[in-house]
Amino acid sequence: MEREDLFRDPVIHMKLKTQMTVNQLIQEFNKSGSFGAGRIATACNIYERMIRDEKCTIFLAIAGAVVPAGLRSIIVDLIRRRLVDAIVTTGANMIHDLLEAMGGHHYKGSHNADDSVLYKYHTYRIYDIFVPEEDFIKEDSKLAEMFDEIAEDNNGSALSSNELMEEIGKRINDPNSILKAAYESKVPVFVPAVRDSEFCYIHWLHASRNTSDKILKVDAFKEVSSIIDLASNSSRIGMIVLGGGVPRNTVQHTAAIARKGIEYAILITMDRPETGGLSGSTLREAMSWGKIKPSADKVTVVGDVLIVFPLIAASVLERLGSKYQRKREK
Amino acid sequence: MEREDLFRDPVIHMKLKTQMTVNQLIQEFNKSGSFGAGRIATACNIYERMIRDEKCTIFLAIAGAVVPAGLRSIIVDLIRRRLVDAIVTTGANMIHDLLEAMGGHHYKGSHNADDSVLYKYHTYRIYDIFVPEEDFIKEDSKLAEMFDEIAEDNNGSALSSNELMEEIGKRINDPNSILKAAYESKVPVFVPAVRDSEFCYIHWLHASRNTSDKILKVDAFKEVSSIIDLASNSSRIGMIVLGGGVPRNTVQHTAAIARKGIEYAILITMDRPETGGLSGSTLREAMSWGKIKPSADKVTVVGDVLIVFPLIAASVLERLGSKYQRKREK
Amino acid sequence: MEREDLFRDPVIHMKLKTQMTVNQLIQEFNKSGSFGAGRIATACNIYERMIRDEKCTIFLAIAGAVVPAGLRSIIVDLIRRRLVDAIVTTGANMIHDLLEAMGGHHYKGSHNADDSVLYKYHTYRIYDIFVPEEDFIKEDSKLAEMFDEIAEDNNGSALSSNELMEEIGKRINDPNSILKAAYESKVPVFVPAVRDSEFCYIHWLHASRNTSDKILKVDAFKEVSSIIDLASNSSRIGMIVLGGGVPRNTVQHTAAIARKGIEYAILITMDRPETGGLSGSTLREAMSWGKIKPSADKVTVVGDVLIVFPLIAASVLERLGSKYQRKREK
Amino acid sequence: MEREDLFRDPVIHMKLKTQMTVNQLIQEFNKSGSFGAGRIATACNIYERMIRDEKCTIFLAIAGAVVPAGLRSIIVDLIRRRLVDAIVTTGANMIHDLLEAMGGHHYKGSHNADDSVLYKYHTYRIYDIFVPEEDFIKEDSKLAEMFDEIAEDNNGSALSSNELMEEIGKRINDPNSILKAAYESKVPVFVPAVRDSEFCYIHWLHASRNTSDKILKVDAFKEVSSIIDLASNSSRIGMIVLGGGVPRNTVQHTAAIARKGIEYAILITMDRPETGGLSGSTLREAMSWGKIKPSADKVTVVGDVLIVFPLIAASVLERLGSKYQRKREK
Repeated sequence: MEREDLFRDPVIHMKLKTQMTVNQLIQEFNKSGSFGAGRIATACNIYERMIRDEKCTIFLAIAGAVVPAGLRSIIVDLIRRRLVDAIVTTGANMIHDLLEAMGGHHYKGSHNADDSVLYKYHTYRIYDIFVPEEDFIKEDSKLAEMFDEIAEDNNGSALSSNELMEEIGKRINDPNSILKAAYESKVPVFVPAVRDSEFCYIHWLHASRNTSDKILKVDAFKEVSSIIDLASNSSRIGMIVLGGGVPRNTVQHTAAIARKGIEYAILITMDRPETGGLSGSTLREAMSWGKIKPSADKVTVVGDVLIVFPLIAASVLERLGSKYQRKREK
Repeated sequence: MEREDLFRDPVIHMKLKTQMTVNQLIQEFNKSGSFGAGRIATACNIYERMIRDEKCTIFLAIAGAVVPAGLRSIIVDLIRRRLVDAIVTTGANMIHDLLEAMGGHHYKGSHNADDSVLYKYHTYRIYDIFVPEEDFIKEDSKLAEMFDEIAEDNNGSALSSNELMEEIGKRINDPNSILKAAYESKVPVFVPAVRDSEFCYIHWLHASRNTSDKILKVDAFKEVSSIIDLASNSSRIGMIVLGGGVPRNTVQHTAAIARKGIEYAILITMDRPETGGLSGSTLREAMSWGKIKPSADKVTVVGDVLIVFPLIAASVLERLGSKYQRKREK
Repeated sequence: MEREDLFRDPVIHMKLKTQMTVNQLIQEFNKSGSFGAGRIATACNIYERMIRDEKCTIFLAIAGAVVPAGLRSIIVDLIRRRLVDAIVTTGANMIHDLLEAMGGHHYKGSHNADDSVLYKYHTYRIYDIFVPEEDFIKEDSKLAEMFDEIAEDNNGSALSSNELMEEIGKRINDPNSILKAAYESKVPVFVPAVRDSEFCYIHWLHASRNTSDKILKVDAFKEVSSIIDLASNSSRIGMIVLGGGVPRNTVQHTAAIARKGIEYAILITMDRPETGGLSGSTLREAMSWGKIKPSADKVTVVGDVLIVFPLIAASVLERLGSKYQRKREK
Repeated sequence: MEREDLFRDPVIHMKLKTQMTVNQLIQEFNKSGSFGAGRIATACNIYERMIRDEKCTIFLAIAGAVVPAGLRSIIVDLIRRRLVDAIVTTGANMIHDLLEAMGGHHYKGSHNADDSVLYKYHTYRIYDIFVPEEDFIKEDSKLAEMFDEIAEDNNGSALSSNELMEEIGKRINDPNSILKAAYESKVPVFVPAVRDSEFCYIHWLHASRNTSDKILKVDAFKEVSSIIDLASNSSRIGMIVLGGGVPRNTVQHTAAIARKGIEYAILITMDRPETGGLSGSTLREAMSWGKIKPSADKVTVVGDVLIVFPLIAASVLERLGSKYQRKREK
């Protein structure tokens, strides 16, 4: 590297204009190119490339309470346009998707609320969101019945987490539901830690009141070959991580087992690397494991998913146009 | 509250002396009582009270790569003295426990290492730790064989994650192993997301080369009633969280389902609440869900588990004395 | 509070459309109202109210390397439309403003660059920005000469930091400069820690080669009465903090001394409260000091200023219209 | 680098024993060597080397509210044993040192207190510390009188911030005061942003009621040549940073101007690099500026200063022995 190579690309200060579109703002981020603004612009560019690469299978890993907080419709839209090909998420996010599908709601509350009062009022808090316990009770009961039906239909044979999500998606009617959209678009939804969520209580309800021997069974390892096959059969793998945790780890580990290093990676997180946990680990570290290719097109945006992901999605949708429907090459 | 009530307890500046013990330093933290020092002193006090409460069942939730990083022996010691009664953890931590039990090692490395070189050298990096791939391969192969044997012994019936951990603990010889110590001390080890770890690859290995129909099955929901019973049958529940993620959520959710709010809680994390994820959520928020009692004795220490937890453990062990063996009331 | 009061305002999931403007996205953030999205929408609303309150004096506190990173033009625009009335900042930000005013540049680089190579190449790094040392040398020399001139003009009497900034602003020609715009718009620029920046080296250069007895003097406390008067004579005080540090503390402390608690406050930071520093302290804490009114309209956005502030500014400019020029009531 | 070089140094799991000293625990951290534990052990080693290098001038940069929170006596002890040679700090820390020297106190409070109630009770909050306003009023008044006296003694000539601190240190009697100890030990205390603290209000008080023309003057730039000379005349520079902000920047910048890159560096902070601010920037970045030597012995510990620094100090004092008094080579 010569010294003059360092000075080819000056920071161009962002300019705002009224009525500028989101993508126009992102283009200003791109011109400045520094700190979080530069990274978010890079993330938009990488997501656009992922989408335009028809041989790329895009995994969206979702952790954190992003569905209750307002990203449900955006995720549904991405599924229906096939801008994601597979979802790996927490049980909780799907529970909150279903809560709304079954008529429940999340409410804007306050993170300063007195939690002992909320407890008395049977109101659950998720940072600044309130959820009435009765909406959970309604959901638990409906899902426990659905579990009866699913167990019946499957005749006692064990399902994988994605098969269970598919069975649920098939049975609900809300077109705004992630599980419904995923079912209709044939986008698999993997929930590797399905047991760690309200699904475990629903299962317990279902099992405890079921007098037949038809108890729904979920085989913890059954999904593994499906997700590995999905990766193995892809020419290239793209990954977008909202948060971290089990969803991120599952996608990365799948890529390693399938011997297909991830080619495109976007990580949005507030976790930091120094304490050694997976959620905050750098994408670079994942290279050493063969999870991400040394040549990968990758970026980490340090920030709140609720701010960052809508920005990226809006910018990329603007580039694609309102009618865009992604086609996947077989 | 009267104004003078605010000024009863002055900050007493910490004094250091040479050869002071860890607990003496913690007493100085207690006297100053402010910021992280105050919180760590409170955590020591709460852990001591948890231990001395013989009717308390202590759940240790472990996330993050703390076993490879050096906490293995401390956790073993806590198990053997019965200063924890149940463990909820990630698959990865148990994989790294077993890697050493099977002769492998973790090595001190550097977080600045070139990961593409490490990849070429078949060396995995966990922040500043290196692990040779060959140690994993050895472990994978031994565990896949062990899975054959466990499947055989269980005659095809599905296990829970804790039963699987018990079966493994029974079969290994390393007295420094967490799974061995837990097996010997009858401390259950729950791994709610067991599929999200090298165990899934080991299972895949085991299943793909097994010609018999004896494939090990893990039922995702089977552990649920065991852990709920454990909580239900306890007079009081204590929780220590290293990190967050699935282990924290499982313990808290168990308490809610069992209708036994947690009585004593220590959370050590670097995550923050504002982005809404469970890992960074306040212990206070968990009250609204009935997971933690409004009257709970609780503290959050913001810090690196590798620094904070040994400090707490050393301080509490010093208070208990070297011979202390906890007895649990039935 | 009745229970039903908790459930008045459901989370409405964000919807994206192509070509949506930044403010339209912010309106979606407002509808969802949760986590960072809700806070950023609130920040836009507060800034709009601050601006439309003609009796409000708006202090913009700027810390962190936001000028080199690309916010220079946005800040200039806000000054020229009088959407800020006073600036409190670090010496470094003004040095980087002047570096460009004197023909220098900042360049997009990489945070992974080898710093020992950069050192050899006389290239300074600010995270992912490179600055050639020669641009600094040029600036140092020009500013040292300007200091000679300012000292001469002021005939040895000591200046305050804001007078020094004004003297510099008067002498430069770049219309894109913050100091030029501030000079022309009569927006004072306070630099309470002016000595902690390249200005100290420039002063040292100026002083060491100056054979006359006309050495520029900056009186550390001289600005205090000006900034207190500004606050005292305002009906209401608004504060926007980018980062934290000395600029935030100075604005808050000024409000307390002037016995005018801040009425509108927006804080954008990544710092957290638990370690007790001012930068991460909550706006609520500032109430106890009388720095912020108990009734204040206030919000903290946890995030990267380079992402968050342009979003807020673009949204508010869209609401005001392209021709908007704020008038201040005397 | 050969592959086997990666695997020379296995992680040795920490072992606790009862009554272990702080330094014994740090030795266990050293054996494990990973994550925060490894970094804290490294910091202890570096501080020990700094101390034993008699040609090293040790700068302690102190930001954040560490003096009110309980580190006052530790800092006094380090000064008196000459384990630091110069201090660069915020006005606030010295104000809180003096508050106690003048009979005031800090009290253990709660970060959850209702700040509007505290405001009514004239009680200031610093995270979980309460300070009665009356203690400030008393201090303000005494210091304003002291300013009268200092102005008188200096006959109107402008002081540097360190001269002002020296004048104050000379006039107080509390042996537990940092300023007293620094005065007695001839350790200069630089406060580059002295104006950004209660000192500005005290100065305003002093100036507004002083009818003579003897107003205390602090020349913002006067300290610059003293601190540069201190660095220039040192064979080697060591730096310990508690927090970040102006104190860190001043020390680093001084080293650059003096053309003496820092040789030993310990940074304890919770800030992170990605948002580009100086406080969170890596020590590596400072190399590009010539502030830190490429060959420097350096480490960053991510953590709460109130936990981390006492640990380091206690460990190092244990190594040095209770009678240790550092000698500096001229």
